[in-house]
Amino acid sequence: MVADISPAQVRAAIQQYLLDALPKPEAATRLELAQFARMLRDYPERGGKMLRGTLLVYTGLAYGASLEGVLPVAAALELFQNWALIHDDIEDASDERRGKPALHKLYGVPLALNAGDALHARQWALLVEAGASRAVLLEFVRMVEQTAQGQHLEMSWMEGQRFDLGEPDYLEMVGQKAAYYTAVAPLRLGALAAGAEPPAIFSEAGLKLGIGFQIVDDVLNLMGDPAKYGKEIAGDLWEGKRTLILLRFLQQASPEERRRAEALLRIPREQKPAPEVQWLHQRLLQSGAVAQAQQVAERLLAEGLEALEPVLRGAPRGAYGALVLEILQSLVRREA
Amino acid sequence: MVADISPAQVRAAIQQYLLDALPKPEAATRLELAQFARMLRDYPERGGKMLRGTLLVYTGLAYGASLEGVLPVAAALELFQNWALIHDDIEDASDERRGKPALHKLYGVPLALNAGDALHARQWALLVEAGASRAVLLEFVRMVEQTAQGQHLEMSWMEGQRFDLGEPDYLEMVGQKAAYYTAVAPLRLGALAAGAEPPAIFSEAGLKLGIGFQIVDDVLNLMGDPAKYGKEIAGDLWEGKRTLILLRFLQQASPEERRRAEALLRIPREQKPAPEVQWLHQRLLQSGAVAQAQQVAERLLAEGLEALEPVLRGAPRGAYGALVLEILQSLVRREA
Repeated sequence: MVADISPAQVRAAIQQYLLDALPKPEAATRLELAQFARMLRDYPERGGKMLRGTLLVYTGLAYGASLEGVLPVAAALELFQNWALIHDDIEDASDERRGKPALHKLYGVPLALNAGDALHARQWALLVEAGASRAVLLEFVRMVEQTAQGQHLEMSWMEGQRFDLGEPDYLEMVGQKAAYYTAVAPLRLGALAAGAEPPAIFSEAGLKLGIGFQIVDDVLNLMGDPAKYGKEIAGDLWEGKRTLILLRFLQQASPEERRRAEALLRIPREQKPAPEVQWLHQRLLQSGAVAQAQQVAERLLAEGLEALEPVLRGAPRGAYGALVLEILQSLVRREA
Repeated sequence: MVADISPAQVRAAIQQYLLDALPKPEAATRLELAQFARMLRDYPERGGKMLRGTLLVYTGLAYGASLEGVLPVAAALELFQNWALIHDDIEDASDERRGKPALHKLYGVPLALNAGDALHARQWALLVEAGASRAVLLEFVRMVEQTAQGQHLEMSWMEGQRFDLGEPDYLEMVGQKAAYYTAVAPLRLGALAAGAEPPAIFSEAGLKLGIGFQIVDDVLNLMGDPAKYGKEIAGDLWEGKRTLILLRFLQQASPEERRRAEALLRIPREQKPAPEVQWLHQRLLQSGAVAQAQQVAERLLAEGLEALEPVLRGAPRGAYGALVLEILQSLVRREA
């Protein structure tokens, strides 16, 4: 059997489904509600890679679902990411998203926060309206709760000026905050949308892939191509994020450098001196911490892929399973 | 037939169900997650009147549901209010909620916003885990979306310094922002949880009751007993809310007073001069605008009750329907 729908076609189909499920400015009964509709459509219309939705679709097809059956679930997953990003950008005081100003920079925090809530409701609406199964709904519950819990961990470390953190702390946080919704949930939801019980390896391997993916993201944040990355380069340093790169650097730094870096990270974003941020940025690159994190990411991605390969190739429609693997492979060497 | 469960018992049962469904600090695997659990439980543990949940339970019982069958739906409704209040308090920069500091005043905006998202997910979790019907889930979608849309209207008026608003604008906004989830949804969800089709009058009369309820709330905000009200007295003036009271006052004020009031309302909360807020507060009370709004509220509440009475008394288990009416009556003369 040949996989008969390309990733570009899948992406376009998800995007179409998603935008069709959002309110249209031209149908609004008042100017204010036209604005509301534009806000809900803003992040989704900026595009994005639709990586998670595409993974979900091919996994679903591999397990026997129809494209029609998986599209609403994939669109809901993408919607999840969109509302979570709106709220994340507020929480992290981020300036940019997908190469444009963050939503709260355009409309202020109150309206953007509320638009995120409305999109959150739309996520559930898509699922319920399409008659998603209880298993799919429960997986969404788990995904949102895992993500929020990981987000709490990360933010409470920044809020509490915590630096007493090791690699296990980082892995636990990022496993919840990012890996679950990036890889575990798309794989599991694909199978569940097809009415299949997700293989246990989806959770274990998905966690490795998702963590690897996030570490690559942290690396790109420091050394990505600004034209492709879509977010502010070194934004994580301005925001004081506890990344694996930073934790490795702090572990290996001299007491003097450690003090200097921690002092900088304690300062609120707006008051951070730019030359100090540049110093830390350079030190992370020079010290080998970035290269080490990159190695960790590559190992995790390789292990995750190896574990998934036989399962996905052995799925009822293995040609789609092979496409899942191809997409996952592209995670290792990406630029955005 | 005698209604065999008192409102106090219903409240206690909802509260118990709700708290049992939230994570427990003592079960957390890390200190940060114990804090996360405390944050999720904070607003729910402050109590509140559980008015909406109680309305839902008695409506459900009136239409033949078991207490066991309606409790999860009522608890989810109360959870909705809790997360919406956490986000509202951030959006409105409110200081207090139920007599204590607002959640973001205790933990900062990022953590509080995220806790609200986690509670939002818990709302759906309660419903899905209890096996709520598609009709119940769709009604929740509608309720959250109506509320967010109304919230957008109100906030965009404040953000846009809009004063060109009349009574129809206010009624449209408050119908969506508050009346739907306060009265329409509890009545409809009660019937839906019992597997019954909600009578059309629930929407029409519920809207009147909910709007009346919100106007009473706006009145209490200006002249409530601080010990009972639980929020800051005159908080709406500090926040610049467009209430019916304010719109009536502006309509009837001299050009001089109108200019003075609008100038005050344009100033951000932190920069508002207290003596000017006191002046406007006094003028609203003296001018008759408060008394007029109170009359509008009483008319709406009376009309809503009258329309509902025969339907609720005629419900399959009319004794419970009578209790719904009793609770709705208490809305007219309340102090908190």
